[in-house]
Amino acid sequence: MTARTRAELAAVQGVAAIRDAATAGFVFNHTMLRIKDPRASLDFYTRVLGFSLARKVDFEQAKFSLYFLVLAELDDLPDGDEERRQWLARQRGVLELTHNHGTESQPGPVYHDGNSEPRGFGHICVSVPDVRAACARMEAMGVPFQKKLSDGSMREIAFIKDPDGYWIELIQPLPLD
Amino acid sequence: MTARTRAELAAVQGVAAIRDAATAGFVFNHTMLRIKDPRASLDFYTRVLGFSLARKVDFEQAKFSLYFLVLAELDDLPDGDEERRQWLARQRGVLELTHNHGTESQPGPVYHDGNSEPRGFGHICVSVPDVRAACARMEAMGVPFQKKLSDGSMREIAFIKDPDGYWIELIQPLPLD
Repeated sequence: MTARTRAELAAVQGVAAIRDAATAGFVFNHTMLRIKDPRASLDFYTRVLGFSLARKVDFEQAKFSLYFLVLAELDDLPDGDEERRQWLARQRGVLELTHNHGTESQPGPVYHDGNSEPRGFGHICVSVPDVRAACARMEAMGVPFQKKLSDGSMREIAFIKDPDGYWIELIQPLPLD
Repeated sequence: MTARTRAELAAVQGVAAIRDAATAGFVFNHTMLRIKDPRASLDFYTRVLGFSLARKVDFEQAKFSLYFLVLAELDDLPDGDEERRQWLARQRGVLELTHNHGTESQPGPVYHDGNSEPRGFGHICVSVPDVRAACARMEAMGVPFQKKLSDGSMREIAFIKDPDGYWIELIQPLPLD
């Protein structure tokens, strides 16, 4: 690993020399994953990871529903649907789950987690104050792990799996003792 | 579409009855996508979308590099690498790009965007203050579109494609006139 200063990062090949003023106010708002069963996924993301369901949008004719989740207290969000929609669109770190109606009754996995061929998408990551405590709690809850802290050479990160098998990295900001 | 109050959202099947105190301080930190060519992807994410390269980590033995990007001014970030690492781990809305060394010289696409079979990952989304202006600028820049504002029935959203073909939704918080 190589420590780099900001000046060194700005000089990496491909990086634009200046930040275009036209991109002012741009926000990395959300990441969308398809899910098989909203009941299982909502349980996982709210109970295990602490997300709140911030919005649900149903497209009855096209037979799909969108679930928008944030790691925040639901009570801190606007109550009106349109006001909440606008609030959500200004946030970073929104998770959008797409449910195509009927997949929940199909046998076995419905979606591809991106980590076997053909690869592409890798994972999402939740940062926690204490990664050892978080992993101990999730192990006790029976959450499946792709990589425990003690597995492999990178002892400061873990990966759990959501109900569709998507990988979720767990990290903590401060170095582990 | 159905407008729902917070109380109605809390009652959706699967949503946990209470937010476990053990999840306090959890942050949806980043999303990781594998990329073929860092030069092309860094150019796209910094020049077209305004991201800054906030950290680069090289694993020489394992032959891969990680690029962490944020939609912020690089000058607003800590200059020290470890301080910047900790700062990054507390943020929402970080984009992690993984480059397995050598893929850039392979012919054709290397990674799967998740939107053809086998499906799974859908897209990331960047919220912009003025989606019409953003789309006009990107069209003028020659950015490929998966869906222009004028395509289909959802006239308030567009999808562009990054150098690996990953879809990026563009939205604006306020309704279009």
